Amino acid sequence: MFNNTSQSVHYNLLSDYQQIRSVTEAICETVDMEEFAAQSASFVSPPKWHLGHTTWFFEMFVVQATMKHEPLYHDQYPYLFNSYYNSMGDRIQSESRHLITRPTVEEIYDYRKYIDEKVAFCISEGLLVESSLEALKIGLQHEQQHQELLLMDIKHIRHSALLSKKYDSKIFSEQHYLPQAIHYLQVQKGIYEIGAKPSENGFIYDNESGRHHQYLESFQIADRPVNEAEYLDFISDGGYSNPLIWLSEGWDWVKANHVKHPLYWSNDGDGYCVYTLSEGKRPISPNRAVMHISYYEAQAYANWAGKRLPSEFEWEIAASKIDKEVTEIDFLLGNDNRNQNESSSRSFFFGIGWEWTQSAYLPYPYYKAPPGALGEYNGKFMINQMVLRGGSFATPIDHIRTTYRNFFHPEKRWQFSCFRLADWI
Amino acid sequence: MFNNTSQSVHYNLLSDYQQIRSVTEAICETVDMEEFAAQSASFVSPPKWHLGHTTWFFEMFVVQATMKHEPLYHDQYPYLFNSYYNSMGDRIQSESRHLITRPTVEEIYDYRKYIDEKVAFCISEGLLVESSLEALKIGLQHEQQHQELLLMDIKHIRHSALLSKKYDSKIFSEQHYLPQAIHYLQVQKGIYEIGAKPSENGFIYDNESGRHHQYLESFQIADRPVNEAEYLDFISDGGYSNPLIWLSEGWDWVKANHVKHPLYWSNDGDGYCVYTLSEGKRPISPNRAVMHISYYEAQAYANWAGKRLPSEFEWEIAASKIDKEVTEIDFLLGNDNRNQNESSSRSFFFGIGWEWTQSAYLPYPYYKAPPGALGEYNGKFMINQMVLRGGSFATPIDHIRTTYRNFFHPEKRWQFSCFRLADWI
Amino acid sequence: MFNNTSQSVHYNLLSDYQQIRSVTEAICETVDMEEFAAQSASFVSPPKWHLGHTTWFFEMFVVQATMKHEPLYHDQYPYLFNSYYNSMGDRIQSESRHLITRPTVEEIYDYRKYIDEKVAFCISEGLLVESSLEALKIGLQHEQQHQELLLMDIKHIRHSALLSKKYDSKIFSEQHYLPQAIHYLQVQKGIYEIGAKPSENGFIYDNESGRHHQYLESFQIADRPVNEAEYLDFISDGGYSNPLIWLSEGWDWVKANHVKHPLYWSNDGDGYCVYTLSEGKRPISPNRAVMHISYYEAQAYANWAGKRLPSEFEWEIAASKIDKEVTEIDFLLGNDNRNQNESSSRSFFFGIGWEWTQSAYLPYPYYKAPPGALGEYNGKFMINQMVLRGGSFATPIDHIRTTYRNFFHPEKRWQFSCFRLADWI
Amino acid sequence: MFNNTSQSVHYNLLSDYQQIRSVTEAICETVDMEEFAAQSASFVSPPKWHLGHTTWFFEMFVVQATMKHEPLYHDQYPYLFNSYYNSMGDRIQSESRHLITRPTVEEIYDYRKYIDEKVAFCISEGLLVESSLEALKIGLQHEQQHQELLLMDIKHIRHSALLSKKYDSKIFSEQHYLPQAIHYLQVQKGIYEIGAKPSENGFIYDNESGRHHQYLESFQIADRPVNEAEYLDFISDGGYSNPLIWLSEGWDWVKANHVKHPLYWSNDGDGYCVYTLSEGKRPISPNRAVMHISYYEAQAYANWAGKRLPSEFEWEIAASKIDKEVTEIDFLLGNDNRNQNESSSRSFFFGIGWEWTQSAYLPYPYYKAPPGALGEYNGKFMINQMVLRGGSFATPIDHIRTTYRNFFHPEKRWQFSCFRLADWI
Repeated sequence: MFNNTSQSVHYNLLSDYQQIRSVTEAICETVDMEEFAAQSASFVSPPKWHLGHTTWFFEMFVVQATMKHEPLYHDQYPYLFNSYYNSMGDRIQSESRHLITRPTVEEIYDYRKYIDEKVAFCISEGLLVESSLEALKIGLQHEQQHQELLLMDIKHIRHSALLSKKYDSKIFSEQHYLPQAIHYLQVQKGIYEIGAKPSENGFIYDNESGRHHQYLESFQIADRPVNEAEYLDFISDGGYSNPLIWLSEGWDWVKANHVKHPLYWSNDGDGYCVYTLSEGKRPISPNRAVMHISYYEAQAYANWAGKRLPSEFEWEIAASKIDKEVTEIDFLLGNDNRNQNESSSRSFFFGIGWEWTQSAYLPYPYYKAPPGALGEYNGKFMINQMVLRGGSFATPIDHIRTTYRNFFHPEKRWQFSCFRLADWI
Repeated sequence: MFNNTSQSVHYNLLSDYQQIRSVTEAICETVDMEEFAAQSASFVSPPKWHLGHTTWFFEMFVVQATMKHEPLYHDQYPYLFNSYYNSMGDRIQSESRHLITRPTVEEIYDYRKYIDEKVAFCISEGLLVESSLEALKIGLQHEQQHQELLLMDIKHIRHSALLSKKYDSKIFSEQHYLPQAIHYLQVQKGIYEIGAKPSENGFIYDNESGRHHQYLESFQIADRPVNEAEYLDFISDGGYSNPLIWLSEGWDWVKANHVKHPLYWSNDGDGYCVYTLSEGKRPISPNRAVMHISYYEAQAYANWAGKRLPSEFEWEIAASKIDKEVTEIDFLLGNDNRNQNESSSRSFFFGIGWEWTQSAYLPYPYYKAPPGALGEYNGKFMINQMVLRGGSFATPIDHIRTTYRNFFHPEKRWQFSCFRLADWI
Repeated sequence: MFNNTSQSVHYNLLSDYQQIRSVTEAICETVDMEEFAAQSASFVSPPKWHLGHTTWFFEMFVVQATMKHEPLYHDQYPYLFNSYYNSMGDRIQSESRHLITRPTVEEIYDYRKYIDEKVAFCISEGLLVESSLEALKIGLQHEQQHQELLLMDIKHIRHSALLSKKYDSKIFSEQHYLPQAIHYLQVQKGIYEIGAKPSENGFIYDNESGRHHQYLESFQIADRPVNEAEYLDFISDGGYSNPLIWLSEGWDWVKANHVKHPLYWSNDGDGYCVYTLSEGKRPISPNRAVMHISYYEAQAYANWAGKRLPSEFEWEIAASKIDKEVTEIDFLLGNDNRNQNESSSRSFFFGIGWEWTQSAYLPYPYYKAPPGALGEYNGKFMINQMVLRGGSFATPIDHIRTTYRNFFHPEKRWQFSCFRLADWI
Repeated sequence: MFNNTSQSVHYNLLSDYQQIRSVTEAICETVDMEEFAAQSASFVSPPKWHLGHTTWFFEMFVVQATMKHEPLYHDQYPYLFNSYYNSMGDRIQSESRHLITRPTVEEIYDYRKYIDEKVAFCISEGLLVESSLEALKIGLQHEQQHQELLLMDIKHIRHSALLSKKYDSKIFSEQHYLPQAIHYLQVQKGIYEIGAKPSENGFIYDNESGRHHQYLESFQIADRPVNEAEYLDFISDGGYSNPLIWLSEGWDWVKANHVKHPLYWSNDGDGYCVYTLSEGKRPISPNRAVMHISYYEAQAYANWAGKRLPSEFEWEIAASKIDKEVTEIDFLLGNDNRNQNESSSRSFFFGIGWEWTQSAYLPYPYYKAPPGALGEYNGKFMINQMVLRGGSFATPIDHIRTTYRNFFHPEKRWQFSCFRLADWI
């Protein structure tokens, strides 16, 4: 979670736009030129692609939608920078984005600047109609999601280079302090309201709205994620060699990929170290949450520990109970600059990692994907993915809320993912 | 759904055992010798493997567990006939089961006979302790599940041969009559009880027990599955060429496999025909449920129709409301020998196909997988699969109940799968 | 090499036809019904496919070509039984031949019988014109090649079944006696004639004709293939773990397939055994040629031994020098029933295995593929394959000649392949 | 073929070294920073990798071999920059070279500079013993081979970017003028000497030495390669849709890759254009050789034309007959700056493209790979590749000779490959 993002007061759309766009560029400031087109795995996108894609989003859904006679900035850019919108025409295969050696980074920055001026013009001249205003707001959320993706991808690219190095940037830190003590919060059974309420000044995604009821049986949930020392116990106890605690497909994944520890861990003989973007390699610690965990690993650990993962509804209710007393300052407690003695359990639902839940990513009651291209934003991914809740080091603070639904395939772990335990009472 | 299975009164375990085992062999009676080792796709098992595997189940979990000094029937059979039990040692890769040219079919029948005698001895001599009695009961359910799998696999093998022919057997028929009229049943919002109650004389799987509450919003649900003529409308309207109605992974599946119609449909220029095991090729009909549908197709159809699939909880509540007035005779209405005028909507929840629901296959509250090898039966598959409810032409009547949870990956469609529509009120 | 094949006097075409066709069926006599459709690897064909394919060859190229109004026996059989003739229309993918559960074996035998009668009619009524007579002769050679392929495939299928057993047939034996003593034959440099002369009464393939000159430098060549004990020395000396003696692609093949010994060898802890079709498992022996060797292995062994493989020209010259004094009886010396003391080096060029040469399979001077479908017989495979010379246990005696060019990809080893060493003088 | 390479007089080893090394860097001068780590196909290497790999070669085989106490420049560089030398330890998979975002290009240039100084020191101080002197000479040849590979890879990378652009460099041009008239040179049958003679002042690879005899039948060979207009006739005549003219594996390659024209050709509706590095896209021309042809395509064209490809021996004899009268100036005739009227057929054997021959890449008589790591240079690739002769636009003039054997897999075509026709007389 990082806080140099948009102001919470949204009446100034233009300054919000400019501020959010500038954060994306700030994240790329210390990216080496050779890293800009790198794609270290099929699921990673080159940093320069993120810069172009987020700009394409504004060009297509705001500028083109508003200024009818405006020509395309470049007639090939839509092919290169469309991600997955079938409504928007053909596109390069996502695993081939590393082929985009052109346009150059410099040309993409020119593209950003040009579109930024067009958007500024549309805003300041009051040209935006309701649909393009809505698209602009989604575009800002979208840009922020790509800020987190950029950090995920930069980390993966840098780590994939044998000679990985730290990412020297003030904008992002993975440092945090997690108390070793653990408490279980109790929640009584009953009907709970789930999902986001329509909000006057805040943004809400379609997949989290549809406020509805869920009946929950009584449960308890840990007040912090599992830490690295606890996870080491799992490894030491043969966690990666006992098929009986794994899901069947999880066990297949372990064997096929020879998985023996979380992503970014390594062991040179002197015990495990963790590669982090902001600190480089460091020893594992009982005061850090174990990160970059797949759903399979989280589920196996929970099985091994005789517990389970919470459902996304349980997580939301537990987090929102605590949330009521949490100020914005509290969100930042996970970061390095806080007083470690002041830490309280209530703050550990946000800002460290995205937490796997035992809920599949499926539509809420009454869900309908919006019409048009933006209907492809969320709904079409509702299969074979699991919901993660919370928010990470890398999540813009605007995206931190109890109802936010993130989602990944169960084998993915290059996102900043962790997990906490739950159980029935 | 077929009814020549076990009696519902279970006090006579031995006759149940013998009756169920004999059905498996009756299913294989008209299988050609060359089909016994065929494996037409990686997810298909050769019929002879089913014969061996179900026997291995009884040998390991009943005979070996009861008679401590009994030697293995053959020291290599566990390697050949273990399906997926990591607790039970190494095994042949499931996609290589076609390599089992030996033991011969005849030798496998000898194996069945030998183990059947041992089991009979254990039963009649009262040697079974609680755990092996439990395993015996699971083994019978397991054998019945493989009866349906056998019919699925025989159909797939026979259809894969260019010169496919009918399956001449009295034991199984896909004939049914579905009225074209459709009604939507209304269910009011509220807290509902879901899951199977512990039952005195009936068998219940671990994955369906854990009776618990679910809050459901008001909904409506069709009283019959979608039929072939309706599905043809979807095809004619470009259903397979419009990405916007598909899940993203569904659309990838359509393109990668050039899917243009349900499995077993074909079009030689004179309109679509359907291959069925019991009738061979026949024209499509508005009085037949569209079968062999993947989740992706069911979901795309529902999207196209402006509706949705029911959740497994909605399905269970709707089916059980009707179920209260349904006798065992009603279960058979879907079959050919009933009076077509008598058909009532209440009967179309069972006995035609397994119906896709919009629910991921996940554990119920309080679920714990049992200890030991049988703990691998259900729980470890709770990822990336969707729940199907109901029961098909090929489902033994013992397995027909409102709480039964079947599950498949969303792209699979060689099972007897169909779907019905639902919507909010 | 087996000798119950056609008579060497070819004036009686009909009896030749009947005799050769009957050998194919004799080979299949002890094949189990479940083995007939088995395909244990993508490069293996099911025995029943061989029975159908060889018949299709006569139907298309003889019967259909001769009797213009004769309908196809079955309009789908060409799709099922065409191997690789693009001129002859679409066909099932070769790796999917295991799907041919129908026609049944019985129906294929009916097909054979029917076509046999038609061919007999064409011969006895003198209907064959020159081209169909030529096709008939090629068809007989083709049938004989499939006799060897049948034995290769039966061996692979049977070995792939965990419970492999011997092949009880008098028609085929892998027994042979190879003296341990080795001598090198010397051949002086000069211009040699290579390739088959047009022959009055014997058949010659297009790929071996084109009698031409080759200049050979002086060389020496072993008088027998490498034996199993010698090959064991190679293994014991780390042959499979030293990349420096392997071709680069050979080493990739070793690593990717974890190759540690020849195909059909195994080691249960008590030393290596070899699976043979005619004897089952037996210990390795210094009096047996090491068989089922890939080109990669042969080349690595030769490198390790400080020698090389002969070129196909060297092999042909050496074999033909000896051949002049060899009678047909000598061909059989490799077999078990000969007096072991009588063995002489001259006989070990034929009848044990196909010997890898260091020559790529390429056209001879003046080579032109014949027009029409039969032009696809040999020429289109002249890339990425290496020439083998000699002939194996399983080669019909008609195919034993110094000029015969067999060919396989360098990684293949399910054929009866072995090798001998050569060197410069 | 480009001529700013080393002087032919080798007495000044140091200036040769410096001059050759500087050409590599000149080639990279106009490479964009984002292209340096790009890998547009598994067979392409990123330009920065070439810069590092060629330096590693000198470090390991010259500096480390000469200066025993010299530490490695960086202990991880051997892992990153070893290409395929099993003797030299583990290495990154060749298809993962795009992961080498670090060291940066700048750091690799530092590495070059450092090693260049060490090599200069070794030379000028007279430290080189015979083996390291030999390695230095091979290293220079190796560097020059990578100069051509660099141009091949830059072309592929640049073309793979949708927005490809020209390569603005004076060092390299694909411009040439080929007369449309064609003559066939006649060569009479007889014994010919093949292979390079040990040379006093020129370098010769192990794979081309072993001067020996070959008997050639009388043949004729075209005096120029096939041109683009002739190749268009082949396309227009259905060359890519007629399986009967293709090798079987060639036809599989056509279908699997949907090949319809040479690499770098495209057709936007107005006829075919060709992408060249030095000119960008240009229309096809009857005065240009058709380039970037696979062996499969060359062989199919020859088949279609009723001719064949020459063997490598035929090519060598034909080229050397002409070569006797050719001066160094003639080598450059293919280039743009020559007087087009002066062109004579004798010059078209060199400097346009590498010409496919119908010879597999196999060892010459008496060939032995040298001991040690450098023995891995050539010999281990002698399987599944075909020989190309001549030399291309991109070939350093030092590598232009009648005996030089280049080799590629038959499906490869990103090298500057073309072909000429031959036939028997």
